[in-house]
Amino acid sequence: MRDAFHDDLDKVSDDLVEMTTMVGDAMRRATASLLEADLATAESVIAADDDIDALRREVDDRAVDLLARQQPVATDLRMVVTAMHMASDIERMGDLARHVAKAARRRYPDGAVPQALHGTIREMADVADRLVAATGKAIADKDVHGAVEISRLDDQMDELHRKIFGEFLGQSWEHGTEAAVDTTLISRYYERFGDHAVAVADRIVYLVTGRYGTEDEGLRGR
Amino acid sequence: MRDAFHDDLDKVSDDLVEMTTMVGDAMRRATASLLEADLATAESVIAADDDIDALRREVDDRAVDLLARQQPVATDLRMVVTAMHMASDIERMGDLARHVAKAARRRYPDGAVPQALHGTIREMADVADRLVAATGKAIADKDVHGAVEISRLDDQMDELHRKIFGEFLGQSWEHGTEAAVDTTLISRYYERFGDHAVAVADRIVYLVTGRYGTEDEGLRGR
Repeated sequence: MRDAFHDDLDKVSDDLVEMTTMVGDAMRRATASLLEADLATAESVIAADDDIDALRREVDDRAVDLLARQQPVATDLRMVVTAMHMASDIERMGDLARHVAKAARRRYPDGAVPQALHGTIREMADVADRLVAATGKAIADKDVHGAVEISRLDDQMDELHRKIFGEFLGQSWEHGTEAAVDTTLISRYYERFGDHAVAVADRIVYLVTGRYGTEDEGLRGR
Repeated sequence: MRDAFHDDLDKVSDDLVEMTTMVGDAMRRATASLLEADLATAESVIAADDDIDALRREVDDRAVDLLARQQPVATDLRMVVTAMHMASDIERMGDLARHVAKAARRRYPDGAVPQALHGTIREMADVADRLVAATGKAIADKDVHGAVEISRLDDQMDELHRKIFGEFLGQSWEHGTEAAVDTTLISRYYERFGDHAVAVADRIVYLVTGRYGTEDEGLRGR
C-alpha cells in the first residue's frame, strides 16, 4: 500500500517537473518572439499553453484520485496537497510566457519593447530560464538548497525589473507612452514568473523543514 | 461522522466568505487611499493584508486536517480541495488590494493616477466591490447563478481596463511616462482582481455541475 502511494506520488512529481520543462520552453520561445517580432513563434507559444493547462489538470485529477484511493495522512498528505499548489504556480508561469507572446503578437510587425531595452529583457529571460530549471530540479530532488538558489535568482530578477522602471524616470524616456506601457507589463510578467518560482520553492522548504521559507509566500506576491 | 464532516466543511466555507469580506474592505480602502492620496489608509491596508494571509493559512490547515481525520471521497473530497484553491485566489485578491495601496504610498503626497482618470478608476473599484460581494455570496450559497453574475461583472472590468489603455494611444496622453506606468499597473491590479473572482466562480460551477465554467480558469488568466 505504501509503495503504491509513493509510486503514484512520484508520477505526480514527474508531471510537475515536465510542466517546468514545458514552461521553460514556452518562456524561451516567448522571449524570442518578442525580441525578434516573430509572429509564428508567438502564435505557437500561445497555442501550446493549452498543453500546460491540460497537464496541470491531470496533476490535479491524479492528486485527488490519490487522496481518495490511498487516504494518506501526515507528511504524505501534505505532499499531495503541496503538489496541487505547485501545479497551480507552474501553470501560472506558463500563462505569463503566453502574456509575453501576446504582447509580441499585439505589436507585430513592430517590436513591443524598444531596442535599447532588449539587453535588459534578454537578461530577465536568462534569469527566468535559470529559475524554471532550478524549480524543476528542486522538485525532482526535494532540495532545500535549490530553494535558496531560486530566491537568489529572484532577487536578480527584481533588480532587473527595477532597472527597467528606472528608464521611465524624469525626461529620459523617448520611446512614447505606448512603448512604456508595453514594457511595463512585459517586465512585470518576467518579475511575476520569478515570484511563482519562489512560491514553489517556499512550498518545498515547508514540506522538508515544516517551516515557511525566508519570506511568506502570501506576503511575497507583488 | 458525515455530520462532523459537513460541520467542518461549513466552517471552512464561512472562513472563505470572511476572507472575501476582508478583501472587499481592503480594496475599498485601497481605492480611497489611491484617489485621496491618503497615506495612513494606504499603510493600514498594507498592514492588514497579513490578517488575510493568516486566515488563508488557517483555511489550508483546516482543510488538510479535515482530509486527514475524515478521509472524504468523491464530491466531499472535491469540495475540500476546491476550498483550498478558492482560498488561494481570494488571498491573491487581497495582495492586489495591497498593491493598489502600495502604489498610493509610493507617490504620496502626489496622486499616482491623473485626476482625469479618477472616474474610471472609481468605476473599476465599484465593479471590484460588486465582484467580491458576489463571490462571497456564491461561496455561501454554492450558487451557479452567482457565477454568471461574476462573469458579467468581469466583462465590465475588462471593458474599463481597455478604456484606460485607450488613454495611452497616440499623442493624447499628457501626464508623463511615470504616470502612464503607474496607471497601467494599477488598472491591471483591478483587472486581475476580477480574474481571480472568476476563477473562484469557475470552481463553484465545476463543483456543482462537474463541468468547467464558460471559460477554463487556466486559459482565463491574463
